[in-house]
Amino acid sequence: MLDNFLIDKHVLAALEEDIGFGDITTDNLVKDGDVLIAKLNTRSDGILCGTKVFERVFKLLSEKMKVTFYKKDGDKIQAGDTIALIEGPADAVLKGERTALNYIQRMSGIATETNKYQDKIGDYKAKISDTRKTTPNFRIFEKYSVFIGGACIHRFNLADCSMIKDNHIKLAGSITNAVQMIRKNISHTHKIEVECDTFEQVKEAVECGADIIMLDNMSVEKMKKAVDFINNRAIVEASGNVNLDTVNEIASTGVDIISSSAIVAKAPTLDLALDID
Amino acid sequence: MLDNFLIDKHVLAALEEDIGFGDITTDNLVKDGDVLIAKLNTRSDGILCGTKVFERVFKLLSEKMKVTFYKKDGDKIQAGDTIALIEGPADAVLKGERTALNYIQRMSGIATETNKYQDKIGDYKAKISDTRKTTPNFRIFEKYSVFIGGACIHRFNLADCSMIKDNHIKLAGSITNAVQMIRKNISHTHKIEVECDTFEQVKEAVECGADIIMLDNMSVEKMKKAVDFINNRAIVEASGNVNLDTVNEIASTGVDIISSSAIVAKAPTLDLALDID
Amino acid sequence: MLDNFLIDKHVLAALEEDIGFGDITTDNLVKDGDVLIAKLNTRSDGILCGTKVFERVFKLLSEKMKVTFYKKDGDKIQAGDTIALIEGPADAVLKGERTALNYIQRMSGIATETNKYQDKIGDYKAKISDTRKTTPNFRIFEKYSVFIGGACIHRFNLADCSMIKDNHIKLAGSITNAVQMIRKNISHTHKIEVECDTFEQVKEAVECGADIIMLDNMSVEKMKKAVDFINNRAIVEASGNVNLDTVNEIASTGVDIISSSAIVAKAPTLDLALDID
Amino acid sequence: MLDNFLIDKHVLAALEEDIGFGDITTDNLVKDGDVLIAKLNTRSDGILCGTKVFERVFKLLSEKMKVTFYKKDGDKIQAGDTIALIEGPADAVLKGERTALNYIQRMSGIATETNKYQDKIGDYKAKISDTRKTTPNFRIFEKYSVFIGGACIHRFNLADCSMIKDNHIKLAGSITNAVQMIRKNISHTHKIEVECDTFEQVKEAVECGADIIMLDNMSVEKMKKAVDFINNRAIVEASGNVNLDTVNEIASTGVDIISSSAIVAKAPTLDLALDID
Amino acid sequence: MLDNFLIDKHVLAALEEDIGFGDITTDNLVKDGDVLIAKLNTRSDGILCGTKVFERVFKLLSEKMKVTFYKKDGDKIQAGDTIALIEGPADAVLKGERTALNYIQRMSGIATETNKYQDKIGDYKAKISDTRKTTPNFRIFEKYSVFIGGACIHRFNLADCSMIKDNHIKLAGSITNAVQMIRKNISHTHKIEVECDTFEQVKEAVECGADIIMLDNMSVEKMKKAVDFINNRAIVEASGNVNLDTVNEIASTGVDIISSSAIVAKAPTLDLALDID
Amino acid sequence: MLDNFLIDKHVLAALEEDIGFGDITTDNLVKDGDVLIAKLNTRSDGILCGTKVFERVFKLLSEKMKVTFYKKDGDKIQAGDTIALIEGPADAVLKGERTALNYIQRMSGIATETNKYQDKIGDYKAKISDTRKTTPNFRIFEKYSVFIGGACIHRFNLADCSMIKDNHIKLAGSITNAVQMIRKNISHTHKIEVECDTFEQVKEAVECGADIIMLDNMSVEKMKKAVDFINNRAIVEASGNVNLDTVNEIASTGVDIISSSAIVAKAPTLDLALDID
Repeated sequence: MLDNFLIDKHVLAALEEDIGFGDITTDNLVKDGDVLIAKLNTRSDGILCGTKVFERVFKLLSEKMKVTFYKKDGDKIQAGDTIALIEGPADAVLKGERTALNYIQRMSGIATETNKYQDKIGDYKAKISDTRKTTPNFRIFEKYSVFIGGACIHRFNLADCSMIKDNHIKLAGSITNAVQMIRKNISHTHKIEVECDTFEQVKEAVECGADIIMLDNMSVEKMKKAVDFINNRAIVEASGNVNLDTVNEIASTGVDIISSSAIVAKAPTLDLALDID
Repeated sequence: MLDNFLIDKHVLAALEEDIGFGDITTDNLVKDGDVLIAKLNTRSDGILCGTKVFERVFKLLSEKMKVTFYKKDGDKIQAGDTIALIEGPADAVLKGERTALNYIQRMSGIATETNKYQDKIGDYKAKISDTRKTTPNFRIFEKYSVFIGGACIHRFNLADCSMIKDNHIKLAGSITNAVQMIRKNISHTHKIEVECDTFEQVKEAVECGADIIMLDNMSVEKMKKAVDFINNRAIVEASGNVNLDTVNEIASTGVDIISSSAIVAKAPTLDLALDID
Repeated sequence: MLDNFLIDKHVLAALEEDIGFGDITTDNLVKDGDVLIAKLNTRSDGILCGTKVFERVFKLLSEKMKVTFYKKDGDKIQAGDTIALIEGPADAVLKGERTALNYIQRMSGIATETNKYQDKIGDYKAKISDTRKTTPNFRIFEKYSVFIGGACIHRFNLADCSMIKDNHIKLAGSITNAVQMIRKNISHTHKIEVECDTFEQVKEAVECGADIIMLDNMSVEKMKKAVDFINNRAIVEASGNVNLDTVNEIASTGVDIISSSAIVAKAPTLDLALDID
Repeated sequence: MLDNFLIDKHVLAALEEDIGFGDITTDNLVKDGDVLIAKLNTRSDGILCGTKVFERVFKLLSEKMKVTFYKKDGDKIQAGDTIALIEGPADAVLKGERTALNYIQRMSGIATETNKYQDKIGDYKAKISDTRKTTPNFRIFEKYSVFIGGACIHRFNLADCSMIKDNHIKLAGSITNAVQMIRKNISHTHKIEVECDTFEQVKEAVECGADIIMLDNMSVEKMKKAVDFINNRAIVEASGNVNLDTVNEIASTGVDIISSSAIVAKAPTLDLALDID
Repeated sequence: MLDNFLIDKHVLAALEEDIGFGDITTDNLVKDGDVLIAKLNTRSDGILCGTKVFERVFKLLSEKMKVTFYKKDGDKIQAGDTIALIEGPADAVLKGERTALNYIQRMSGIATETNKYQDKIGDYKAKISDTRKTTPNFRIFEKYSVFIGGACIHRFNLADCSMIKDNHIKLAGSITNAVQMIRKNISHTHKIEVECDTFEQVKEAVECGADIIMLDNMSVEKMKKAVDFINNRAIVEASGNVNLDTVNEIASTGVDIISSSAIVAKAPTLDLALDID
Repeated sequence: MLDNFLIDKHVLAALEEDIGFGDITTDNLVKDGDVLIAKLNTRSDGILCGTKVFERVFKLLSEKMKVTFYKKDGDKIQAGDTIALIEGPADAVLKGERTALNYIQRMSGIATETNKYQDKIGDYKAKISDTRKTTPNFRIFEKYSVFIGGACIHRFNLADCSMIKDNHIKLAGSITNAVQMIRKNISHTHKIEVECDTFEQVKEAVECGADIIMLDNMSVEKMKKAVDFINNRAIVEASGNVNLDTVNEIASTGVDIISSSAIVAKAPTLDLALDID
């Protein structure tokens, strides 16, 4: 995931955003040949994510930059740990610092938050998952971070999985109609998920062959009943009112997936910093 | 700010990100001529921000879309308020919903958080301000939201204001050297800011003509002493350890600007939703 | 599918490709106010596809262009039929002609070829499907044409469905290993397909829970045996040696999907032309 | 032709098209350090074309890829020949395979088809040529393939040569008017071609100084008469009803150029495959 | 020439260059509904060029802008003339002013300078022409201006006409070799020009069939001799030491084309200004 | 300034502009392995500017190119000096020559012209400066050249410094109103400049706290009076009627900055050439 051709395109635009016509501080102070050595340290505990992007920021500024990582994406890191050693031309180090940190802090923040949810779930089989509530034009980085944090990632966009919501059901007349109209036309490689508010909807969705049933904003009891009824005939996803306090109990219902926008939208950035010697 | 030529370029990329080859649910359910009417409602109190972007999402999907706003950017909104009426082709409404909300929820969230800080400052002259800790390739939206929230926005990037930090000072030998080397080379339309950790640095910075002095991670007492010493010879900016609990006391020192990454990086999205009739 | 924001980006690049600095013939002959009326006629029988793209070519050259279609995508058309009426500024008509035809001829050609395969399948339940053997940077148009021709479209790219081929199996050690390693990491909204050359592989794939089994280059007898064994526990896709002579017999085995690159790669363009009055 | 800066831009977009957010099969199976060695073999006879593009696909995925060609563009290849050796990181080999083949199969297919036409022409001086009926945004690759196949390539677009067709003649009033209006305004480095349906048009076109005369859909006898009349005062191009059965007889009329869209639009892809050890 | 799809792409980038995140002066002063009316006046005599680009700048800022031209491209304009009336939202007028003028001043400057050269040539048949010495990524506007100024435009780039210079001759061994190698491979729709320093080279170039002979840096006498010798067997182009003082005498030699980089590279911008009521 | 990520994007587009589908002369003459050595020589005296861009043109054509500079940006160069040695594949040298020269000739021309103005100013403290009258989408190169020529560069665009002109004053009611409305809303890192035509305006601008006062088209006497009055309370910029004859006298008034569009718009290109051995 997140191949270099995707990363570089985004990072080059980000460098243009943050540097523009030139870094008027650094460009007027650094002399040819000045070299800096810096350490990427963490000041908080968490899950590291974004090492490849961090490195590309510096490499795209100067081929002479060397970035050596002591940890890799997905590793647990603790306040005080040194994550990487950065060495190279002083201007490349100073110009790239903020952009490189903006990626890795945000990505590690999301991976860390995701991981907290998964930890809370404990030994239940459920996996935490994300949603399409992401920052526009930053989704590839957010999805990747969610994955590194231990989640089961949700569909990438509107094209790779069908999700039938209340308004779709109204337009089609019924869940059954909607599933049939869509199944007839979509790729056999794609699944159909149906968002259900009631047990009756769950029954209809299972019976007309939905691949995934989303239990939307249901009580724990209703969820258990639904899981029992579905009985592995479809993947069961819980949604609504998911937070660190509720996620374990939701998992206890036996659902397969618990999706929440919070792991992306409410994840604080992780406190990583570049300390220059 | 945020002219349409900037917005459209970003929104078109975001639609490609979220819709891709096609919305396989909506495209297989909606019939030609199906029309939907929806309301943009808020479920939380806050400051509205992002109306123009929200509208462009739908207009770029279909010229037939009509979006009528009852509130404008910067307005206070309360849980239960209806913000806008959206009407048009059913597929454009359903395809644009998530992307439009992703912009306006995040932008309103940042404006709301910023506004809380400014409110806490109360009658002190200080203005809250942002930093370069932003989401890569989303800065124009975050800066604009900070402005709408009532902040004094900080420099846009490394090219429009010089900021001399500790590593720059080391490279130049002294604050005075750094200021002189930069002043000689930059535009007369640009300012120089110096980040100071100690009172001695503040003295040196003022005396060599810095336009803005940043008091970095100083105690309230030290800040007061610095403000007194500077005595309007430079704009004074406080930074470090800024949160909703500390911002009022920091403002009481008489500083002009209080900058914090939290108003962007830690702002939760505002709970706005599209309710379709 | 194929929303305007996708079409316009491609068409604007195509116009730059075909017109470049200017149409040195038309620009030196047409006077302001010259108007042309033209008919899009077909000289062959087939399935029409690409009307929206055809129209956008002219609209992007001049907002004054009017394109009125008498047929829509998916309609059967017969040699001699008039498909559309085009009227507008003479230079826009003459400059857009070739590019508009290049899209609609190729897209209708693919829809027509696809439809022939589906027709040959007759009453069997199988649906013809495509592959990733497409023209680089033209896939959205080819996939859409295949869909309009009556096919069940295959995965869009390497990201929206997993397909395990022989080399993947070697890397993982076994089909079972591969399926497990992938299932653990991919989205619950995505499926796994396994390419099988032998009956043993089919057995293993079904038993480890593959969603789709591809029978690759098997004889009709072997396919029948596999279909019987699978017994609806997975979707069954046949591949290899598919052409208009073999497709009906392959369908007779009871497979769900028959995939072939020929419907795209070997589809001749349909003979449509612009006749100017 | 086809410099790297042109190729890379197209290939990067094609990789994004085919891989998107990530190859969910390969990324979950390949371990760091896994290496693959593969051979590019041909299963059909033909003319090789597209080696540089094929190589760039892999190089843009990983700088560690090595591609060694045993044949070069324009070489005749025979079923069973090994064309190239590919070695490098397993994920780069598996991710690039389809895109690399999509270019080289299509390009070799066009070169091969073109070459068949040129072969049929035999010792006559005529050269086969192409048209503007190409795949939108793929023309540079198709033109290059036609060239490698032995053709004389036609104008690149509407800007580098004037071609006066029937509708232009109507707008201008006569061939003579059209030629004069255009000659007065175009670059002295550009030529004018006139499409003629009748002998009278040929006479007029020669006499008003057309550089190239296209004989459109004429019988062999009429073409001979036209060639005799033109007598080297203009380049003579034949068009219409060109196929492998007719091309030799058309060439026998003494025309210089025989143009046909078939060498691009009807060329089947050449059967090349990557065999991984 | 210069169709809207080419213009808009360039103008949108130019607006981003000049406005960036926002016009901090105008955006903070203009109120919704403020309207401005302005006149485009000329303070110098010259040839008008760039009206369509000028208009697109404003239209791309606001669809409400109205631009009414009293003159068109190619018209002679005199100091004091009003060229156009501009009315619309105050912010669009103020934001677009500089960019719109940057195009039209530069384009009119080039058209004016070109026209001076053509005027000096008087009744001789020669036409002034340009070169490839243009501003990178601004060539389409410079070429168009040269055309509007009355010149015969030269080749657009390295792809639409072959020009054999001294270094090419060295690589090929002789002019004859070079012409033959190139003729064999290029499109029949393209011409070959040969740059000649000596009469012997002229002879060789004519005899091997060059379409255009460039007499490079020759004396007037040598040019006359060459023109006589060539005797209409090729187009004759003079180059080198071309300025307003020499161009008439050069034309007197009977050459067809006189090319000079000065009409683009040394053309001063024309003094046009926006006067707001 | 002018980091590689900015240069490469512009240069790649420029190569596509100048080479397009291919250099039909060079591509048909150069054989694999042909190497050329060339010298970049200057035929005029001036200030060198653009070495990094010059080098990138060749490097982006072939990684095998070597460019060795004997001078650096800002150096004085004299007719006859050899500036650089270029060696590498013959086709890369020949294809890159014109584009590389187009950048370096224009950039050196601007640096040279700028330097002449600064020289004329002599020992006065004033610095010459530029304006926003630049070539659309070429500003970064022009601004950089002005800087290398010894100027104090002016604001980059409408977003990094406020400049209040006559029309803004009319909209706001008064200079004081305008300054207050803007100061309240802009970043504390940005300055406000006020364009003044009269002494009264100068007084008002100083008193309401403008950072920079532009004296627009004032006589030398009026400028002296204004400078005396301002007395270092603001930076003073002179504008209007600036040329090589007037610039010294304007500087004698004690202004800080003298801005002129002539250093960009009227700078002739510097005569640099590539001489191939």
